[in-house]
Amino acid sequence: MHTLNVDLGTRSYPIHIGTGLIDQAELIDPYLRTRKAAVVSNEVVGPLYLERLCAGLSRLGVETIPIILPDGEAHKEWQALNMIFDALLCGRCERSTTLIALGGGVVGDMGGFAAACYQRGMPFIQVPTTLLAQVDSSVGGKTAINHPQGKNMIGAFYQPRLVLADTATLDTLPEREFSAGLAEVIKYSLIRDAGFFDWLEENIDALRVLDAGALTWAIERSCRNKAEVVVADETEQGERVLLNLGHTFGHAIETGLGYGQWLHGEAVAAGTMMAAELSRSLGWIGDRDVTRIERLFERAGLPTYGPALGALRYLELMTHDKKTEAGKLRFVLLRSIGQAVVRSDVEMSDVCAAIEARCR
Amino acid sequence: MHTLNVDLGTRSYPIHIGTGLIDQAELIDPYLRTRKAAVVSNEVVGPLYLERLCAGLSRLGVETIPIILPDGEAHKEWQALNMIFDALLCGRCERSTTLIALGGGVVGDMGGFAAACYQRGMPFIQVPTTLLAQVDSSVGGKTAINHPQGKNMIGAFYQPRLVLADTATLDTLPEREFSAGLAEVIKYSLIRDAGFFDWLEENIDALRVLDAGALTWAIERSCRNKAEVVVADETEQGERVLLNLGHTFGHAIETGLGYGQWLHGEAVAAGTMMAAELSRSLGWIGDRDVTRIERLFERAGLPTYGPALGALRYLELMTHDKKTEAGKLRFVLLRSIGQAVVRSDVEMSDVCAAIEARCR
Repeated sequence: MHTLNVDLGTRSYPIHIGTGLIDQAELIDPYLRTRKAAVVSNEVVGPLYLERLCAGLSRLGVETIPIILPDGEAHKEWQALNMIFDALLCGRCERSTTLIALGGGVVGDMGGFAAACYQRGMPFIQVPTTLLAQVDSSVGGKTAINHPQGKNMIGAFYQPRLVLADTATLDTLPEREFSAGLAEVIKYSLIRDAGFFDWLEENIDALRVLDAGALTWAIERSCRNKAEVVVADETEQGERVLLNLGHTFGHAIETGLGYGQWLHGEAVAAGTMMAAELSRSLGWIGDRDVTRIERLFERAGLPTYGPALGALRYLELMTHDKKTEAGKLRFVLLRSIGQAVVRSDVEMSDVCAAIEARCR
Repeated sequence: MHTLNVDLGTRSYPIHIGTGLIDQAELIDPYLRTRKAAVVSNEVVGPLYLERLCAGLSRLGVETIPIILPDGEAHKEWQALNMIFDALLCGRCERSTTLIALGGGVVGDMGGFAAACYQRGMPFIQVPTTLLAQVDSSVGGKTAINHPQGKNMIGAFYQPRLVLADTATLDTLPEREFSAGLAEVIKYSLIRDAGFFDWLEENIDALRVLDAGALTWAIERSCRNKAEVVVADETEQGERVLLNLGHTFGHAIETGLGYGQWLHGEAVAAGTMMAAELSRSLGWIGDRDVTRIERLFERAGLPTYGPALGALRYLELMTHDKKTEAGKLRFVLLRSIGQAVVRSDVEMSDVCAAIEARCR
């Protein structure tokens, strides 16, 4: 088992990464405040892992209340969030009861936001079971639900007390979802870790066949990159915005198609290609870099073109993004592979050209 | 104008108290992050004060987006909260746009919770227009909405950047609501300020005829008491729970009757009498103290008996309260007038007797 620490003062927490951690309830035990925990999962992950997690906790004398959500990004909204609140109240959960999110990014985002709001805040633990959640959404304290007009519009910064990433849970992950997780892994390498990009070019095939050593290494390196950024800028006043490479375009794809059509990681991959096109048109990266990025996404099983919504529709959707400031769109762009920057002074004609070059 | 400071480190903020402050937009200006503000009010307060507030801000070059909620505690729930989110998105508000809550406790609680969640947190200013909001709910950062099974169950601790309490707005406040605000004023004196209780016995009639001097003095002393408690214990881990004197019983009354039947302050007054009865049965305060408290509530125009829901129903409603810990009910009780304590080891027979003595 590898352990990383996210150093946020009184809100610091460890990330444990390893195989079979879900059966080791004693790793969770020290982080519970009382002998009671609500476990939020969904109808896909629940049948696979919920009983094992709860059995371990029961052996340690912890009462567990299972809460099963419908599966998918389309349910990341008020109605499903209210299901969590109803179940917490029904189970007489107190503000000292711990909420454990067992599942992918949607379960973690909703469980975390519910924990942030229930009685104005209850303890929260992440047990991510998808690659995306293990390398990205479970770390850093961003929680949210979607609004019909914008992704992750309603939420909170709320840190977990522990993240438990069991790499064995990836065995049951559909290949398409695994690829979507790789989009965020590749993202870290692009924004701040050129050496990691080189390593990924070497090892992307090993990752796709779930080679245990490659997997643990990639997850740990991704989490370390994310943790460093979060520690420097917890509430996204500065550097943290770099983590959104490809996300402004990507959110437009997700919102424009309706949640659940494309996976988040797929939209990020296509969005990152738009950001790469835009960076090339500014003269920052060359044709060869764009080709390297495109080739890596392709080998990861990811799309490199967005859907043809029309450039105007993209712009409209993007102006609703949270990263807008003073009415200006801000873009995370690439100075080089391994170095991202934020710019808000980009010409709209260049933006449109980048979108058009990467839609089909 | 009097100014108090709530000293919470990087989240510190001033409370301005005075007459006509609503027309002095220059008091708000330094606390805005951009030249745009959303002003949340309701259909009763909006027509009275919204235009004046917005006009002042417009003169300073601030674009304002008015958001009008339906009136009343019955609307303190998801649906009305979503109206705020819809309007913020529709008005293209960003995470740097400031949300100003103009109204009573419900507007402040909902506006504050919306500000806490919108894009994971936008700047927030309170302009309370009821006595209750000026002395209590606008100060301290508690925001929430109700759940059918419990009051204020879903919320956040989220501090405003400024509280602007214009005492002139109390001229338009219905007498019943003014009395409800006095319940919280009296509460501060009971839990930690015996001298204030004596002063209130002397000045309650002056307050009820809106004597400007008495009013400013009572609001400032109430806010100072509240601010001291909040600074010592922002997230209610300890002392802050004392502010809930009468609230466990009171929330049971509000939830049991359905939100909006009794005003919050009315329920708190009757609930405080139950807490006083319970304190007397434990031998802490005497008959004379109970009579003094009852007399002061009566002179303030407040009920001193709760509705006859039956003791069992009260207990059932109270076990859903946020102040429950490890399955035990915690009660804020009176050692004396001016000194409250928390106890969780009270016999249920005594609790039932206190409820029954104060229902009719």
